[in-house]
Amino acid sequence: MTQQEPPDTGPQPDAPKSPKRWIVGEPLPTSELEGQLLPKRLALPIFASDPLSSVAYGPQELLLILTATGGLAFLSFAPWVAAAVVALLAIVVLSYRQVVKAYPSGGGDYEVAGRNLGEWAALTVASALLVDYVLTVAVSVSSGVDNIISALPFLDPWRVWIAIGFVLLLVAMNLRGVRESGKAFAIPTYVFVGSLGVMVLVGLGRWLLGDLPLADSAQYGVQAHDLTQAGLILLLLRAFASGCSALTGVEAVSNGVPAFRVPKIRNAQATLVIMGGIAIALFAGVTAIALLTQVHYVENPCDLIGWAACVDQPQASVIAQLATSVFGAGSAPFFLIQAATAAVLLLAANTAFNGFPLLGSVLAADGYAPKSLSTRGDRLVYSNGVIALAAMAGVLIVVFQASVTHLIQLYIIGVFVSFTLGQIGMVVHWRRVRRRGVRKGTVGGLAINGAGAVLTAVVLVIVTVTKFTHGAWVVFAIMPVLWIVMHRVNRYYRKVGREIAVDDRTEFGSSGDHAIVLAGTLTKPTLKALDYAVAMQHDSIEAVHVAIDAEAAQRLAREWDERGIRVPLTILDSPYRGISEPLIAHIAEHRRSHGSEVVTVYLSQYVVGHWWQAVLHNHKSQRIKSKLMLVPGVTVAIVPWLLDEAKLVLKRPVRPFPGQDRRGEPSRPLIRRHLGEEEAAPSDGPR
Amino acid sequence: MTQQEPPDTGPQPDAPKSPKRWIVGEPLPTSELEGQLLPKRLALPIFASDPLSSVAYGPQELLLILTATGGLAFLSFAPWVAAAVVALLAIVVLSYRQVVKAYPSGGGDYEVAGRNLGEWAALTVASALLVDYVLTVAVSVSSGVDNIISALPFLDPWRVWIAIGFVLLLVAMNLRGVRESGKAFAIPTYVFVGSLGVMVLVGLGRWLLGDLPLADSAQYGVQAHDLTQAGLILLLLRAFASGCSALTGVEAVSNGVPAFRVPKIRNAQATLVIMGGIAIALFAGVTAIALLTQVHYVENPCDLIGWAACVDQPQASVIAQLATSVFGAGSAPFFLIQAATAAVLLLAANTAFNGFPLLGSVLAADGYAPKSLSTRGDRLVYSNGVIALAAMAGVLIVVFQASVTHLIQLYIIGVFVSFTLGQIGMVVHWRRVRRRGVRKGTVGGLAINGAGAVLTAVVLVIVTVTKFTHGAWVVFAIMPVLWIVMHRVNRYYRKVGREIAVDDRTEFGSSGDHAIVLAGTLTKPTLKALDYAVAMQHDSIEAVHVAIDAEAAQRLAREWDERGIRVPLTILDSPYRGISEPLIAHIAEHRRSHGSEVVTVYLSQYVVGHWWQAVLHNHKSQRIKSKLMLVPGVTVAIVPWLLDEAKLVLKRPVRPFPGQDRRGEPSRPLIRRHLGEEEAAPSDGPR
Repeated sequence: MTQQEPPDTGPQPDAPKSPKRWIVGEPLPTSELEGQLLPKRLALPIFASDPLSSVAYGPQELLLILTATGGLAFLSFAPWVAAAVVALLAIVVLSYRQVVKAYPSGGGDYEVAGRNLGEWAALTVASALLVDYVLTVAVSVSSGVDNIISALPFLDPWRVWIAIGFVLLLVAMNLRGVRESGKAFAIPTYVFVGSLGVMVLVGLGRWLLGDLPLADSAQYGVQAHDLTQAGLILLLLRAFASGCSALTGVEAVSNGVPAFRVPKIRNAQATLVIMGGIAIALFAGVTAIALLTQVHYVENPCDLIGWAACVDQPQASVIAQLATSVFGAGSAPFFLIQAATAAVLLLAANTAFNGFPLLGSVLAADGYAPKSLSTRGDRLVYSNGVIALAAMAGVLIVVFQASVTHLIQLYIIGVFVSFTLGQIGMVVHWRRVRRRGVRKGTVGGLAINGAGAVLTAVVLVIVTVTKFTHGAWVVFAIMPVLWIVMHRVNRYYRKVGREIAVDDRTEFGSSGDHAIVLAGTLTKPTLKALDYAVAMQHDSIEAVHVAIDAEAAQRLAREWDERGIRVPLTILDSPYRGISEPLIAHIAEHRRSHGSEVVTVYLSQYVVGHWWQAVLHNHKSQRIKSKLMLVPGVTVAIVPWLLDEAKLVLKRPVRPFPGQDRRGEPSRPLIRRHLGEEEAAPSDGPR
Repeated sequence: MTQQEPPDTGPQPDAPKSPKRWIVGEPLPTSELEGQLLPKRLALPIFASDPLSSVAYGPQELLLILTATGGLAFLSFAPWVAAAVVALLAIVVLSYRQVVKAYPSGGGDYEVAGRNLGEWAALTVASALLVDYVLTVAVSVSSGVDNIISALPFLDPWRVWIAIGFVLLLVAMNLRGVRESGKAFAIPTYVFVGSLGVMVLVGLGRWLLGDLPLADSAQYGVQAHDLTQAGLILLLLRAFASGCSALTGVEAVSNGVPAFRVPKIRNAQATLVIMGGIAIALFAGVTAIALLTQVHYVENPCDLIGWAACVDQPQASVIAQLATSVFGAGSAPFFLIQAATAAVLLLAANTAFNGFPLLGSVLAADGYAPKSLSTRGDRLVYSNGVIALAAMAGVLIVVFQASVTHLIQLYIIGVFVSFTLGQIGMVVHWRRVRRRGVRKGTVGGLAINGAGAVLTAVVLVIVTVTKFTHGAWVVFAIMPVLWIVMHRVNRYYRKVGREIAVDDRTEFGSSGDHAIVLAGTLTKPTLKALDYAVAMQHDSIEAVHVAIDAEAAQRLAREWDERGIRVPLTILDSPYRGISEPLIAHIAEHRRSHGSEVVTVYLSQYVVGHWWQAVLHNHKSQRIKSKLMLVPGVTVAIVPWLLDEAKLVLKRPVRPFPGQDRRGEPSRPLIRRHLGEEEAAPSDGPR
């Protein structure tokens, strides 16, 4: 472990194109990071597919709760509940406009909570968001697959595999890089927004002309309920909580500020506001048309048409019913809307693929997560985060069999934990700014974030109460575990950091230097290692043979004599047929009699040309190395022996920078020699 | 790769006992190999459980073919067919008596065929036997599970898992060592032989007294068939081929001669003859009693009792029916026989666990299989062969869902390929011996092995014809694949052997010696590596930092200055964020300007105390090492940095020989210093 970032830059340019290259594309140099940044027209679909797609189910959930629990009579409350959701959405969007400006580094709520409320809040936000990103992928993909299966029911047996397939597709697209996935995602999102917008406008127009037909489901009766006042309030709260699913993903922009083009803050804020505007317009519009066409949507369609006639067929979604009313069943716009809805639901999962790796890299940089999460891959994305997210979402999809009904219960909670803590953090932030004497903007900021904090906290309570027993407890069980793991990881990194920090007493003197060359048979690899060790001019040197087979040991001793090799050969007995153990005992013995000498063990190791040849070798030197590493004061030198076939495979010169090579630029790296030109240094300095 | 045999001798003695130790036991020193050898009373059950257990189904298969295809009329041929099987068994046993004497090294048919007929025959025998050993495990375990499920039908849903469980049990027992598994297997085998012998004797006695009851199935009618003379011959041949399943496993003794106590040949021959005698007596006896009690056994029991009354319940096996007739249903001897039969069928699989690893080690020693198959594990058995066999048998069991009906079709063919080639090889052997002028014993040998060759060849043809379309073609498809793989492996080993052989021109001079210390951050591990490299007194030395993050690189350069480190620091640019590639390019550059200098790259590597800590590190040095190994002229030196916790875990002194330690003997290995006492060698020579 000598350097911080360890990505693998993959195969050579003129090697046959590997599957990885087909999927991911050629590696990009770090200098192209700027070129990967997002213009607003791409940032919008990338960050907004999640909140916009929730228009497809937000109004539906809201109507469902009202109709199913309360009966038709309570639909009159729908506009008010929808208005509350829209108002909350507006406040949350405005709140995040403030976050983007105050903390533009991409830390989002995590950074806000950490800076203003402390480590505990940052870790709480982080664990909540990590859980929710995984759920976003699982829920959105499952919901998209649901829509596809509604249209093509024969695919039902492969539901889980189709969902997994889409997750893999998302992984591949995201590994290609933020920019390229943005392009692929822009079209469906814009088609979805456009077609839904047209539907709302045409619907309203036809209503004004008195020409809007009722939905098919309008004729079905729904059982009426009597509710106490307390029951009514609970009903409205549940409807409100369900509608709040439209808010998920709003925070994505605040985590993605670094991915925007300059001026980053301005662009991110603008994207946020545009997104909020569209989401509000569509949410309100869809709810309005749904009420105007008197769509009845309940959990069990048999409630609508009566038990006798019920054939247990799935109910068309609210969006589908509206499209039928406005444009007519089977019309071209109807199919366009259905396809765009399915596509945008699948793409909503992509928001998490942007958020999770960014958050992971921030956590890794802060020492709360494994360092590998902060490694940019070939295409400049945090590849390990992308893969980790996909793996966890895949597990969820398999465990819950891609069932939206089950997964949706776990959803939203994490987002609102993050919302609430982030907004509280912002309130603390503004108060601190005021204490520093700054007045401008702080009153508005306090008002917006204060309102956001109170409202999101209320929603968090409502969502928790209404969902806890339906499975949401799982989230509350996982979050503390994540919290503790991150805390421990941080403690470990800090401990290691202290341990390896150089202080003034750092010194590595030793009294001497002894070399051991492990010799199995008298072959070229052994002689090469011996030759190399001799060239190193150690204070003392010996060859060691561990005798598993007495005959072979005698043969080696004889050959050693015959060749007159001047390095002494020690033969160690190995009653238990291990090589490392007698060797380690021998080293211990040597150090007992020679003080704390540094011991270097030379191992020769075959390098093969093909993977299958590796099966035919013992990987002994690898295993011996692992055991020797545990012995204090021992250094292991591996002397490679390239087999002929490996040489053939490697006969092309190694070209480290495929990208540059491809473009005809020189493959020599920029060498900046720093210090030491005057010393006895090699003369290959800068040319 | 410097030594031939690489086993791992496992954990330290006073570490908490690992699961491996509970299962396998303490490691045994090589010197105890002699103590693991088998006395005859243990060799018999170990090598004979396969051929003896076939008495449980051999007669049954024979009667089944005659009754099902020919009707009751043809049962009169049964004694003649049984006599033919018995005669063949006798000849094969006598043939192998000759093999044991002529080739006592444990190579068996493989060696006989190779020495007398050439490599092609040896590889054919080897591939046939490997396939058959795997099938023996799969068939025997499945058949044993079948018997258990006949008694306890509620276990049926877990059939495959029970079979896998027995395979794992066999693995565990065999990993404990040949001798210990022999003890465990002796009792059921002897109980089986004893109880079946008593049953035959009591049955014959009661028949002589006119007191033997008929079997329950005697009353059921079987549809009679008319057969042409050709049909009759085919019928008898098929019955004969089915009965020949009794011959499988006879060859095991000839492969196991080295496992016998001295005098090995005499003991192995005696064991073979005793086994043959018992097998013949039981086979003949069981068939006789079956005919006397008029057992009717058909594939579909409904044929016996008529369709109307058929309740599709499994038919009791022939052994069960006989035990019922002789001792009465539900009597104690009946249950004893049933239990012993089930146990011995499971143990028959053990024959393969003795044969396969031995054959594998012989193949590995001859360079036809990976060397790891010739490695003796902790308990002196060829552990890798045991595990490989179990893995392949496990796959077969899962694929065929532990169905005996399907697996049995693939069975026997391999054994008879091996029989035939082995016997032909013995004929060639005797002719060669005669040509050398030796007369004594060669006529008898030629007669026995000639007869064996002809008869087994005929049976091979019959078995192939009758089974080919029922699935046996799979065996004929796999055998050539194995053949080619072994041939290729051998070619590869020979090529490598030639490549690494030392010749008179072997020389590894180089024009100079350059050291590179990879430095990521200025921490203690880096300084330690630097210090170590400086101590090695290379011709030239430099530290190299690969700059992924420009800021970090500048910080390192600054700290380098501040500390006044006298080794020059080179900073390499890494546009694609890889570490190996710029480093390799830098090395190539260096060698272009400095000739073929040997380059040593020093990498520091963390050693952690717990596996989970490994997750938090990047394993970068490991990956960089792998890539550097591919560069000609580069040696990699790994300088370990033990983290504090690793030191805690390792605070106990390393004791390499748990066994000796446990017995209070000194843990210092026997050091035989050979050569070089007069040189400038370390003074830790023999004491």
